[in-house]
Amino acid sequence: MKEFELISKLTAELESGPGVITGPGDDCAVLDVGVPGRHLLFKTDAIVSGCHFDADAAPEAVGRKALARCLSDVAAMGGTPRHAVVTLGVPDEFDVDYAASVYRGLNALAKQFGVTVVGGETTRNGDRLLLNVALIGDVAAGRAILRSGARVGDAVFVSGELGGSIAGRHFDFVPRVKEAAWLADAFDVHAMIDLSDGLAGDLRHVLTASGTGAELRGTAIPISRAAKDRARDGVSKKTPLLAALTDGEDFELLFTVAPKNAVAVLDGWKGAFPDVRISCVGKITSEPGLRLRDERRMMELTVGGFDHLAEKD
Amino acid sequence: MKEFELISKLTAELESGPGVITGPGDDCAVLDVGVPGRHLLFKTDAIVSGCHFDADAAPEAVGRKALARCLSDVAAMGGTPRHAVVTLGVPDEFDVDYAASVYRGLNALAKQFGVTVVGGETTRNGDRLLLNVALIGDVAAGRAILRSGARVGDAVFVSGELGGSIAGRHFDFVPRVKEAAWLADAFDVHAMIDLSDGLAGDLRHVLTASGTGAELRGTAIPISRAAKDRARDGVSKKTPLLAALTDGEDFELLFTVAPKNAVAVLDGWKGAFPDVRISCVGKITSEPGLRLRDERRMMELTVGGFDHLAEKD
Repeated sequence: MKEFELISKLTAELESGPGVITGPGDDCAVLDVGVPGRHLLFKTDAIVSGCHFDADAAPEAVGRKALARCLSDVAAMGGTPRHAVVTLGVPDEFDVDYAASVYRGLNALAKQFGVTVVGGETTRNGDRLLLNVALIGDVAAGRAILRSGARVGDAVFVSGELGGSIAGRHFDFVPRVKEAAWLADAFDVHAMIDLSDGLAGDLRHVLTASGTGAELRGTAIPISRAAKDRARDGVSKKTPLLAALTDGEDFELLFTVAPKNAVAVLDGWKGAFPDVRISCVGKITSEPGLRLRDERRMMELTVGGFDHLAEKD
Repeated sequence: MKEFELISKLTAELESGPGVITGPGDDCAVLDVGVPGRHLLFKTDAIVSGCHFDADAAPEAVGRKALARCLSDVAAMGGTPRHAVVTLGVPDEFDVDYAASVYRGLNALAKQFGVTVVGGETTRNGDRLLLNVALIGDVAAGRAILRSGARVGDAVFVSGELGGSIAGRHFDFVPRVKEAAWLADAFDVHAMIDLSDGLAGDLRHVLTASGTGAELRGTAIPISRAAKDRARDGVSKKTPLLAALTDGEDFELLFTVAPKNAVAVLDGWKGAFPDVRISCVGKITSEPGLRLRDERRMMELTVGGFDHLAEKD
């Protein structure tokens, strides 16, 4: 959304201040609040009925998703989530049992990730349910992985399988906190982001922040079964590849490492997380822009410019 | 609101976890995140059009108010606010200039209080504008002033003048950060809260948390000019005293100290803050409940039970 991009420009231009290592514009803010050897991570995020979930979604799933999105952001910095505060905006028609179920879903996930919910506010919110989670976490000082660190020649990796998240995984995805912490610990990861806007969109955020371009190999992009099913059944007009490139809310990790580390990352990951797919999908280039290479040709991927991919083979 | 009280019970029953000094139920959470000699304060709060401000309110005032409410909560713990993240939920009809003005108002206040805005998210939100601020601050370890510390015999103080905030002060109030920090530094403040629900309602929060009762002296309660004007002009059906007891959003401090310190607090405050009124309005009692004493009688103040005060003299 054009307006939202303009607003994010507004916030990116905010003045910095004491203790701010990284301000607006990355997955989390990075702060030095005086913890020896550690930096604090700080994030806020909201989901709203009719935008991020249907009004008839299970309240436990809604609560879970609101926290999971923030956990994914902390993961994308290589950090550990710690404490959350919650704002629940309730529509005129709601009952306490519904709110209790939202909190139940949120808390179950919090417990799983060692996060404690330390505050909750409630307000009226017209005809929408809104759930905002603000999260703090931490990371070793100087080790937060930013979007801006990609270097020319880097190998680009993604975890998991992409596309078709709307079929269900946007509710039950497991934030890649463990995997990201392992990566950050074992390798010199240059740049990382979590996939919320789709591979193409989020990779573009990395490229913009890093001042580089990238080339993706179409055959290397891991496509989810949901994306294939939705294309086959005509539920989505996108080809599976286009879905994997542009569908939102995968909440997988996208990261870059020096090419000399690529094989070690692949091997290490497969040993540590045999159930989570890892794919090297391309490389960082000095030529700006984002390109997709398949067997026959190279295509430029521009914002909203995927029409040439939209027809099925 | 009965439902909101039930939800706040839900959150108060959340499990605690590592680093949590004070969880849900006070003005801020208090956390030990490993800063030597300091505890972190963590708070979230939202304002919504049609609830906390009219849709035609100046956007700068809306941005200012959202942050000011959080600053007031950090003040009520005796703490110093540091970093904020903002979620802007926008209605279908909005423009970027409006959002820019919201941020302008918020930032101007942030600058005034040495707070840095380190993240901003934007989402659609049906037909309402919602502005959520999450704030972290800090306080000397073990020195956060809770609601639960009031002791029998304590003198009860309030800053400023109360009631009629809806006439304008709910937008332009100055959070009592400086005053609270001074108090926390100079005195053994037993309990503190900021007045958002009205003197009677917020004092009741202190009494519940502290397991005590209180007696207020009607003639000692500082009544704002706005409360008097609104009663005189018939804009409000409340007497000025009832308005001072029950109108919301005063955002003044209510605190208790041992009776032996009461005179020193009065004298010290008047020297330090000659422009901000300070009033000793009553005392903490072992007898539970909240009572109001005037020249002729003692009245029990129950929740929603102010009818006997509602007629004008």
